[in-house]
Amino acid sequence: MNPAPPTFKDIQNAARVLEGFAVGTPLLESPQLNDLAGGRILIKAEMLQRTGSFKFRGAYNHMSRIPDSAKAQGVVAYSSGNHAQAVAASAKLLGMPAVIVMPKDAPGIKISNTRNYGAEVVLYDRGSENREAIGEKIAAERGAILIRPYDDPFIISGQGTIGLELATQAREMNARLDALLVPCSGGGLVSGCAIALKELSPDTEIHSVEPAGYDDMAQSLASGRKMAVDGKAVTFCDALLTPTPGDITFAIASKLLAGGLVVSDKETAHAMAVAFSVLKVVIEPGGSVGLAAVLSGAYDARGKTVGIVCSGGNVDAKTFTAALR
Amino acid sequence: MNPAPPTFKDIQNAARVLEGFAVGTPLLESPQLNDLAGGRILIKAEMLQRTGSFKFRGAYNHMSRIPDSAKAQGVVAYSSGNHAQAVAASAKLLGMPAVIVMPKDAPGIKISNTRNYGAEVVLYDRGSENREAIGEKIAAERGAILIRPYDDPFIISGQGTIGLELATQAREMNARLDALLVPCSGGGLVSGCAIALKELSPDTEIHSVEPAGYDDMAQSLASGRKMAVDGKAVTFCDALLTPTPGDITFAIASKLLAGGLVVSDKETAHAMAVAFSVLKVVIEPGGSVGLAAVLSGAYDARGKTVGIVCSGGNVDAKTFTAALR
Repeated sequence: MNPAPPTFKDIQNAARVLEGFAVGTPLLESPQLNDLAGGRILIKAEMLQRTGSFKFRGAYNHMSRIPDSAKAQGVVAYSSGNHAQAVAASAKLLGMPAVIVMPKDAPGIKISNTRNYGAEVVLYDRGSENREAIGEKIAAERGAILIRPYDDPFIISGQGTIGLELATQAREMNARLDALLVPCSGGGLVSGCAIALKELSPDTEIHSVEPAGYDDMAQSLASGRKMAVDGKAVTFCDALLTPTPGDITFAIASKLLAGGLVVSDKETAHAMAVAFSVLKVVIEPGGSVGLAAVLSGAYDARGKTVGIVCSGGNVDAKTFTAALR
Repeated sequence: MNPAPPTFKDIQNAARVLEGFAVGTPLLESPQLNDLAGGRILIKAEMLQRTGSFKFRGAYNHMSRIPDSAKAQGVVAYSSGNHAQAVAASAKLLGMPAVIVMPKDAPGIKISNTRNYGAEVVLYDRGSENREAIGEKIAAERGAILIRPYDDPFIISGQGTIGLELATQAREMNARLDALLVPCSGGGLVSGCAIALKELSPDTEIHSVEPAGYDDMAQSLASGRKMAVDGKAVTFCDALLTPTPGDITFAIASKLLAGGLVVSDKETAHAMAVAFSVLKVVIEPGGSVGLAAVLSGAYDARGKTVGIVCSGGNVDAKTFTAALR
């Protein structure tokens, strides 16, 4: 049986735990972007978060609860990069060792940043090896605690603090959110935000956004049961390659989400270029899919007020430069 | 005789005028940047301002005071780009025509953005023509009001709202600013910020920062009288090419500034790359010189709390890409 999904109170509690450690990221509004979209667009700038992505919130929320007696054995995590950096940075802050299992083809910036936070990195081959199995084996050998990337109540409530902040900031800006668009891989971010919004802004329609070929959440929401993609599609959204939603995250999403949107890599690259030239922020491919949904028309924002979570900015100069062309 | 320099009250008044039009830009802090600098660094993110630079604040503050009877003749401005966009965008908001005199070699993004705001652009040759003369001729012919880029009390008090916000935000973050570093061309931004800080944070040392070859403010502060550079040096800081400080701005700066710092283009390009990889924001060359001063050691930030105004983000993809290499 799965653990119970977190509640709004768990998210408020996570916000207290994160106070002074996570960055309270700004909610940005650009008149020029509003003109482009034909609506009012509010950007939750999680690329400005510690470690360059939202993942720090969940990782630190979970890891700060580890009792002193278990700290020496440390933690282990598997991740394509952003969760890796988040766990590594949290481990450094909390004074515990961390082993991170990362795919060999993860962006160089994500691998080197993870090492720079002092974590031990174990590389694996995404085609032939199973990261969960490697992670669990290391955890068992070392007595380390496995920090799952999304299917964990502490992770979900940590990511949910984004929804808490965003709803509060939108209110301060006199904005009534018609919709919230959230990048989705395993679903920790979107399900956490959905719990917060359900409480603070219940009329807001929440949509997950995924890259084409990895639209398992969209398919699952449409069919009402967990679906999986084959994981063979090629996308440059390296942070969004999870083939199926988590059990806890899907249980939440299936209750609270309005549906799932899908965008192409070309649309995502265009969104990155618009973010560069209009918003002046650096968004990585996976972090840009929500903006891509609005700019491509996958979500019609005309006349509406739309919140978009831009979830991270950890992108190599080479990939970023290519998107600008 | 020059007009009297603005007071702190003028800046508070400008803040009221700008309310709802200018973006209240965030003051960003990055633990990773703090580690790099060895101090606490607070970044005033003016690249997130309307039109992509701080210049909107001064232009709108001045232009919103133009009486209805004078609106139809419109405004004229000369600018390398950021003031141009600011005047054009303000004219659009206020419903008046604008003519902008811009150098032929200004970044393409600045020229096209200015046209996109609906302004008429007149190009001139920086080597052989005088932009002030062209601007004054057009103003006389059309009965238009000339909006000077820096040597104007309304412009200075508009830019000073950055200092007002920054001091307030720093206080909310429990930061006592040892120093504030501000990019400097004609000196409107640094002198406006200095007036605000003198009132709100009088112990903060304020430094102008300029690119090598255009260190006229640094030279002027050192000698105690207005100095000029020959304007022949080559720099990619296209926003900071003014050869001598303004009369009003120097009168303020010579009283309130601790001194002037100078950085090389190489140091500035490195700062842009660090902003990309660590801060996840896009800063144009001229907007990055304050950060460059800290990262290069031109200002020793170790053990100190330092505010840095990052004044704009209007940079072509080509220039940005080159800086990342």
